[in-house]
Amino acid sequence: MPVVSRRSCGLRIWPQQPAQRSDRGLFRRPGDAVTPIASKSARAASLDVAESVRAVLDGVRAAGRTALTAPEAKVLCDAYGIPLPKEGLATSADQAARLANSIGYPVAMKIVSAEILRKSDAGCVVLGVKSDSEARAAFERIVGNAYRHAGEAIIAGVQIQQMLPSGAVDARISAESDPSFGKLVAFGLGGALGDVLGDRTFHLAPVSHEQALGMVSSIRAQELLDGLRGSPPVNREELADLLVNVSALIGDCPDILRIDLDPVFAAEHFATAVDARIVCDFRPRGERGRRDVAATNSSVDLRVSAGAAKLPAGASGGRGAAFSSRSGAVATSIIGFARSTGMAVSAVVGLDDASEIDEADLLAFFGQEPAASVIAIQCEELLNGRAFVEVASRVSKTKPVLVLKAGRRASDAVADRAETDARDKIYDDLLRAAGVIRSRSLRSMLDCARGLPALPTPKGENVLVISASSGLGALLSDACLDSGLTLMEAPKGLGAELEGLALREDAGESPVEVAEPSPSESYREAVQSALADEAVHALVLGWGQTAASPLAFADQLIELVAGMRAKGVDKPIVAWLAGEAEVEAACEKLYGHGVVARPCTAETPVEVLGAKYQWARGAGLVMA
Amino acid sequence: MPVVSRRSCGLRIWPQQPAQRSDRGLFRRPGDAVTPIASKSARAASLDVAESVRAVLDGVRAAGRTALTAPEAKVLCDAYGIPLPKEGLATSADQAARLANSIGYPVAMKIVSAEILRKSDAGCVVLGVKSDSEARAAFERIVGNAYRHAGEAIIAGVQIQQMLPSGAVDARISAESDPSFGKLVAFGLGGALGDVLGDRTFHLAPVSHEQALGMVSSIRAQELLDGLRGSPPVNREELADLLVNVSALIGDCPDILRIDLDPVFAAEHFATAVDARIVCDFRPRGERGRRDVAATNSSVDLRVSAGAAKLPAGASGGRGAAFSSRSGAVATSIIGFARSTGMAVSAVVGLDDASEIDEADLLAFFGQEPAASVIAIQCEELLNGRAFVEVASRVSKTKPVLVLKAGRRASDAVADRAETDARDKIYDDLLRAAGVIRSRSLRSMLDCARGLPALPTPKGENVLVISASSGLGALLSDACLDSGLTLMEAPKGLGAELEGLALREDAGESPVEVAEPSPSESYREAVQSALADEAVHALVLGWGQTAASPLAFADQLIELVAGMRAKGVDKPIVAWLAGEAEVEAACEKLYGHGVVARPCTAETPVEVLGAKYQWARGAGLVMA
Repeated sequence: MPVVSRRSCGLRIWPQQPAQRSDRGLFRRPGDAVTPIASKSARAASLDVAESVRAVLDGVRAAGRTALTAPEAKVLCDAYGIPLPKEGLATSADQAARLANSIGYPVAMKIVSAEILRKSDAGCVVLGVKSDSEARAAFERIVGNAYRHAGEAIIAGVQIQQMLPSGAVDARISAESDPSFGKLVAFGLGGALGDVLGDRTFHLAPVSHEQALGMVSSIRAQELLDGLRGSPPVNREELADLLVNVSALIGDCPDILRIDLDPVFAAEHFATAVDARIVCDFRPRGERGRRDVAATNSSVDLRVSAGAAKLPAGASGGRGAAFSSRSGAVATSIIGFARSTGMAVSAVVGLDDASEIDEADLLAFFGQEPAASVIAIQCEELLNGRAFVEVASRVSKTKPVLVLKAGRRASDAVADRAETDARDKIYDDLLRAAGVIRSRSLRSMLDCARGLPALPTPKGENVLVISASSGLGALLSDACLDSGLTLMEAPKGLGAELEGLALREDAGESPVEVAEPSPSESYREAVQSALADEAVHALVLGWGQTAASPLAFADQLIELVAGMRAKGVDKPIVAWLAGEAEVEAACEKLYGHGVVARPCTAETPVEVLGAKYQWARGAGLVMA
Repeated sequence: MPVVSRRSCGLRIWPQQPAQRSDRGLFRRPGDAVTPIASKSARAASLDVAESVRAVLDGVRAAGRTALTAPEAKVLCDAYGIPLPKEGLATSADQAARLANSIGYPVAMKIVSAEILRKSDAGCVVLGVKSDSEARAAFERIVGNAYRHAGEAIIAGVQIQQMLPSGAVDARISAESDPSFGKLVAFGLGGALGDVLGDRTFHLAPVSHEQALGMVSSIRAQELLDGLRGSPPVNREELADLLVNVSALIGDCPDILRIDLDPVFAAEHFATAVDARIVCDFRPRGERGRRDVAATNSSVDLRVSAGAAKLPAGASGGRGAAFSSRSGAVATSIIGFARSTGMAVSAVVGLDDASEIDEADLLAFFGQEPAASVIAIQCEELLNGRAFVEVASRVSKTKPVLVLKAGRRASDAVADRAETDARDKIYDDLLRAAGVIRSRSLRSMLDCARGLPALPTPKGENVLVISASSGLGALLSDACLDSGLTLMEAPKGLGAELEGLALREDAGESPVEVAEPSPSESYREAVQSALADEAVHALVLGWGQTAASPLAFADQLIELVAGMRAKGVDKPIVAWLAGEAEVEAACEKLYGHGVVARPCTAETPVEVLGAKYQWARGAGLVMA
C-alpha cells in the first residue's frame, strides 16, 4: 500500500473553495512558492506537490522516525494551503530585497550563523523592515556587524521572515487519528488560555467549509473572536479554510497520526499557523487498535436476539423503547424501571466483549424495527465510534437515540485527566452532530425513553409555562433554561381573555401565573387558550393542589387535551403536579394520556421536553 | 453621619499585613507620596489621608455627581494602598530627573500641550527612560521638538509616567454594595477574556488576607496565574493585598456604591491597577432597597408557628428535617414527598412577602431547635442575604443547611443575562463560604434532606466503590466525581484477602469489582473488609440482582452494618440496587437502617453522600 496514493493526495489537495478563499495575497498557495513554478501547468504542479508529500513521508519512514522536522512539516502545509510564516535565506543584499519583496513587508531579518549566539546584542537582528532599500541596507548592516562581532564566524546568510501583524487571537487547530472515531479535526483557543480552559470542539474529518464555520462558532469563548473592546472581529472564513485544509491533509494521508497547529494567529484579514507539528504512525492499520467499519449493516445474530427473552411480562404493548447495555446489572435496572412504571419495552440487549456485533450494529437493527420508537444505549468506550455516529446520523432522523456513556470522568488524581475530559468532549461533539441525545444518568435516560414516545413532536420553539404559583413557575423556568428550551413571551390574547393572569415581572416572558379569583377555572381556561393559540408550540404546566384534587385536575386536563386533539391540535405538554396526596396517581393517569407529568420535580418532565426538542431539531423537524 | 468617620477611615486604612507586604519599593504607600511628608508623624499622616478621602467624597456630593474623576479616585486609592501607575508633571529638566527617580525607572515621558496632538510624530514622546541623565536629556529633547514643531504652543510641562513591565496577566478587582448582601468584593480575569468567561469569585467585604488568597485561587482559569508555558507565576500575595485594601475602602465608606479596578496588571513581582473607577450613592440607606439586619435573632411569632400544623400525620417521629418555602405549592410538594417516603419532618413553614420574619430568622430558629437535624430552604431572591449567610455560617457548623433558590437563570433573550449569571455566582460563592449546600432542584433537595440525617459523618475523604459489575461501577464512579468525592485506591489488604476482586484497569482506583467465583459471598466479604479497614471512610455500593434476592441482600447488609456498629464502626454507606423486582422494597428497608439506597439511579445516593461530605468539610469535621 503506498503511503500516500496519488489519487487521495494528488487530487484532493486543493478543494476549490478554500483555494479561492485563501487567495488574498497574504499567504502562499500550492504552486505559489517563493520560487514561482509558473512555467508548469496547474495539474503538473499539483502532481509535483503530491510527489513532494509522498517523498517527505517516505523519507520519514525510511529514517525510522515518526515526527516530521519543521521543514518537512512545511512541505506538507504548503501542499495543503496551510499558511505558515514565509521565510527564506538571502546571501546577498539584492537577494534579500527580492526575497523580502516576494514575502511582503514588513519582514524581520537576522543572521544565520552557529557561532553568533546573542544575535540581538551583536546587532545582527533588524525588525520591521519595510522596503527593498531598507532590506538591502539591513543586509549590509547585519553582515557588517557579524564580522565586526566575530571575524572568523561562518555565516550561512541572512534569514528573512514574514512579520505577522499584532493584535491577533491565538487559536489552535489540530487533527488526529482516533482509535474509535478515526480521523478527527479540532478547533480551540491556543496558548496558555487554551490549555487552561480545554475549550475545544471536534468533528469527523473531512469537514466542509460550513461545518468548519460551525466548529469555530461553537467554542465557549467564541465571543473572543468577535473583537471585544473595540478590536475588529477575527476572520472566521480564513479559520474555516484552515480547518478544511487540515482535515483534508489528515484524511488523505492514512499514516498521519496527528497534526498540531499551535498557535494559529487569527486577525481581521488573515489566519495563519505559526508552528506546525506532524506525527505519523507507519504501523499497519490492524495494529493500531481500531476495528474495521465493514460489519455495520450486518443483520443481528441469533445469540443476541435471544437476549430479548428477558423482557418483563406485560410491558410489550404500545410503542416500545429498545435498549442495549454493556452491563447485565444495568440491564436488570432497566427492566426493573420498566416493570414499576409500566414502560413499554421492545428489547433489552446485553452486549459483552465477546459479542460479534456492537452498538452500531444494534442501532442499525433497532432503526429499522417498527416496534422500537426510541432507542436507548448504555455503553462504555465505543469500539467503533465512527460507524456508530454514521448509523446514528441516519437513524436519529426518524427515531430519538439516547446514549449514556459510562466512564466519562477521570479522578482529579489521574495524571491525564485533561485528556479524559478532551476525550469526553469528542463524544459530546460527535454524538450531538449525529443527532444523538446524550444522557447524563441512567435515571434521566430511562425517564426520557419512557416520556419521548408519549409526546407529540413540537411544531416550533415557543414554550409557554403556565403555573399556579410563582414558586413553581420560577423553578420550572430555571429547568426550562437548563434544558435548552426557549421561553416565549405570554401571548397577548391569553392575558386579555382571562381575569387574574399575571406575567412574571422581570422579563415579560412566561411563566403565566394563574391566581385569583378562581384558580381552577382560570387555570383550565389558560391551558385551553394556550392550546388554541397557534403561536404556542409546547406547554409546561405547574399545578398546585388547591380546591380541586389532583385526580380531578388530571381528568379535566385529559378531557381538554382530547378535545383539542379531536380538532387536530396536538402539542407536547409536560407537568409538575405539586400536592400532598394523590399526585402520583394523577401523574400516572396523565402519562397514560400523553401528558408527561411528575410529582415533586420540575426537572424530570422538563428534561423530557428538552430531549424531545433536541431530537426534533436534529431531525430537522423544528428549526432552532 | 459623617461620610467617612475618622475611626473607620483613619485607623483601618493600613492594615499592618498589607502595608508590610506591599513594601517592596514599587508602589506608593500612604505617606509615601511623590512629595514626601516625612516631616509629619505616621499618625498625623494617616489622619491627613482620612481627611483627604472625606474631602474628596464631600466634594463629589457637593458637585451633585456620583462618579469620581480619575484624580479623585487616585486620592482614595493612594489612601488605601491601591497602587496605580505613578505619574507627575515636570516643568524643568532637573525636576524631571527627580520625579522620574522617585517614581522608579523605566518611565515614559511625553509633552503636555493641548496644541500638540500627534505627540509621537512631533518627537514629543520618549519611552523607556532608564536614568536621571536620560530623563534630563529626554526633557530637553521633548521640549525642543515641541517648540520646533509648534513655536507658539502653550506647554504645560512634560508628563512622567511609570512604565509597567510587560508579560503581566490582566485581572479585575471590584467591590460593590449589593442590595441583599451589602458590601462585596470580587476577583476575576480582566479584559476581553474576563468579559467572555464571566469567571469571577465573590466574598463579603471585608476580606482577610487568607480569604483573599482563597478568592484568587478559586477562579476557574486560575492556572493562568501559575505562569504556563514558561512564564513565571503571578504574585498572588500582591493580588490578595489589593483585594484586602479594596474591601477595606468600600467597607469604610458607606457612600461608595462600586469600585472597579480593570485591568489590574499582575506579574511575578507586582500587582497594580491600571485604572480605577469609583461610583457613589449618597442617598440615605433606607432608600437603597436594603432591609436592616437587626431582626435576625428574633424569636418566631405565632403566625408562623401555626404553619407547622400542615405536617403529614405519622411523619413526626425520629430525627426530622425542617423546611421553609416561599411558595405554598412547593410546600405541598414537600409534604407530598414526606408522606410517600416516610421522611420525618419537624416543620414546613411557608413565607410570603407579608411575613414579618424572613429566611434568616427561620434559619436561626431551626438552628436551635433540637427536632430539626437538617434545614432545607426554598427561596427566591433573599431580602437580607447578608444576615442569612451570617446565620448560616453559624448554624451550618452543627446542622446541614440546604438552599434551593428559584430564578437562578435568565432567558438568553434577556439583555442583562450576564448580570443574572453574575448574581447567581454571588449566591453560589457566598452560600458555599457560609457552609450551605446549594441544591439544583427540589427533588435533589428533598433526597438530601431525607438522606443526610440517615448517614453518619465520614471521618476522612477516602471513598471506596464496591460494585457487582463494571457497568454499575463505572456509572457510580462518574457520579462520585460529579459530586466532588475522592475515589481512593483499593486497599491492598482488600485485594489480597478475597478471590475474584478486580480493580478498574485504567486508574488503579476504585471501583473494586466483585466477580466470580461466588458473587454474593465475595460481595459480603468485600464490604466487611472495607468496613473493617481504617483507611476506608465511606462506601458506595453497586449491587446487581444475581443469585440472591434484593431483600435477602438488604437483610445481609443490615446485619453486617449492625455488627460493625456494635464494634463502634459506623461509616456512611450509599447504594444503587439494580434489579428487576423487589429493589424498591429492599431500598426502603436499607434506608430505614441508615443505608441510603435507591433503585435505577447511581446519582441520587451518591449525591446524598456528596452533600454529607460538603457539609462535613464546611463544618470542619473532615479535611478536604
